Amino acid sequence: MTTTTMLMLETHPAEIGLDRGRLAAAIDALIACAQACTACADACLSESSVAELTKCVRTDLDCADICSTTARVLSRHTGWDAGISRSLLEACATACESCADECERHANMHEHCRICAEACRNCEQACRDLLAATG
Amino acid sequence: MTTTTMLMLETHPAEIGLDRGRLAAAIDALIACAQACTACADACLSESSVAELTKCVRTDLDCADICSTTARVLSRHTGWDAGISRSLLEACATACESCADECERHANMHEHCRICAEACRNCEQACRDLLAATG
Amino acid sequence: MTTTTMLMLETHPAEIGLDRGRLAAAIDALIACAQACTACADACLSESSVAELTKCVRTDLDCADICSTTARVLSRHTGWDAGISRSLLEACATACESCADECERHANMHEHCRICAEACRNCEQACRDLLAATG
Amino acid sequence: MTTTTMLMLETHPAEIGLDRGRLAAAIDALIACAQACTACADACLSESSVAELTKCVRTDLDCADICSTTARVLSRHTGWDAGISRSLLEACATACESCADECERHANMHEHCRICAEACRNCEQACRDLLAATG
Repeated sequence: MTTTTMLMLETHPAEIGLDRGRLAAAIDALIACAQACTACADACLSESSVAELTKCVRTDLDCADICSTTARVLSRHTGWDAGISRSLLEACATACESCADECERHANMHEHCRICAEACRNCEQACRDLLAATG
Repeated sequence: MTTTTMLMLETHPAEIGLDRGRLAAAIDALIACAQACTACADACLSESSVAELTKCVRTDLDCADICSTTARVLSRHTGWDAGISRSLLEACATACESCADECERHANMHEHCRICAEACRNCEQACRDLLAATG
Repeated sequence: MTTTTMLMLETHPAEIGLDRGRLAAAIDALIACAQACTACADACLSESSVAELTKCVRTDLDCADICSTTARVLSRHTGWDAGISRSLLEACATACESCADECERHANMHEHCRICAEACRNCEQACRDLLAATG
Repeated sequence: MTTTTMLMLETHPAEIGLDRGRLAAAIDALIACAQACTACADACLSESSVAELTKCVRTDLDCADICSTTARVLSRHTGWDAGISRSLLEACATACESCADECERHANMHEHCRICAEACRNCEQACRDLLAATG
């Protein structure tokens, strides 16, 4: 999958003002995080202790939506708008951090929360790296 | 449609710390903006002058994605996270403003851009009102 | 909101082979259903009886995703592909029917499920009407 | 990324009636296809020959939306509904086939269309394999 993201960046006709390797890594981290959060929300729903996991489900759903949207915005380079990208990356890093915090509270009990928290931390870092590189 | 959004808010079992009328108005403005941007992007694609509208298509697509995601996040009240909501509302207001600016540049030529710009301005204002109310 | 959807259809430069009033009604029903399902999933999460509502949450989430995507596809008229639209409308009608059935099982207990079921039935009918009109 | 998808499946508490390897492969193919289509639509917008690529942009956008939604639905196993999954997989295979056909028409001219067509063919096959396995 990383390969496809990078290939699409390399064959894009527009000038891309960012390091393509870093950008591809961020897009892949966003997509992986969105999938993990979607799956973790559903895994929490299937736990017998679901009543204790409702905040986790909700944060997973928010994080999945925000990461998916951020991956799409970062995949576009026609008429690049730094303001949109930067404010969305800030929101996405915030969501990933909140979701990682919430999932970590259940990581000892639920392996899906532990794996999802890792995907969120990885994605948060990728967003912050990209923000630093475009600052 | 406004009716359904408001009914869903009124029957939600969680405590909602925001004015429900203002919140329903924001969700409806976000949804209307997302639809208008999706339609405007496609209408631009069908114009013979599409080559001059590519930035408009791109900004429409970003704005549609961000508004859809923001409408979803604002429709959730379980385990509310003010940090996620606020940073996403900031990003959404930024996207709506950029998209309105871009669409207004073509509003004299293309009626779909004029209508879309109005939906974006309305949505930007609804986001900023909600931010002010939760500040 | 209906107004904006209809205005965007009326100002679209492409030829649209469907009745615009019926199409606008379908798009608005899809969008309203997506919002109701997103809100109902979250309202279920906030119920003390959430453990009995997990299938409802899941079906709500599926239905919200499918309705949102169908609304987007129906908002595009450039290079219309009847095969994609028809197969997606079939899937969407199936999802709406399943979600309405599930929500109706809880409609006596939870008003949000009753309202959501109505939005799903309305949307299912709009999808089937559009399928019949394009058959 | 494949690793995360598979790990999330392996740690899901629900019984999953499908082969997990095949399912993880399908989810990863769907996600890769959605990203490639989003990127290809934008790459087409940046081509000087965009006026000849508008149908490709449109089909890319449809395919991206449908693949993203299908990946989400397949990532959920709580209260599995075979009817929704199967009809959506049919719609997704149809969209991938149409998008691959359209992208292949431009594959000699645009490398991003060639790569995107491959991602679509791969995804179409994964959807059909999953349909055959659940038939």
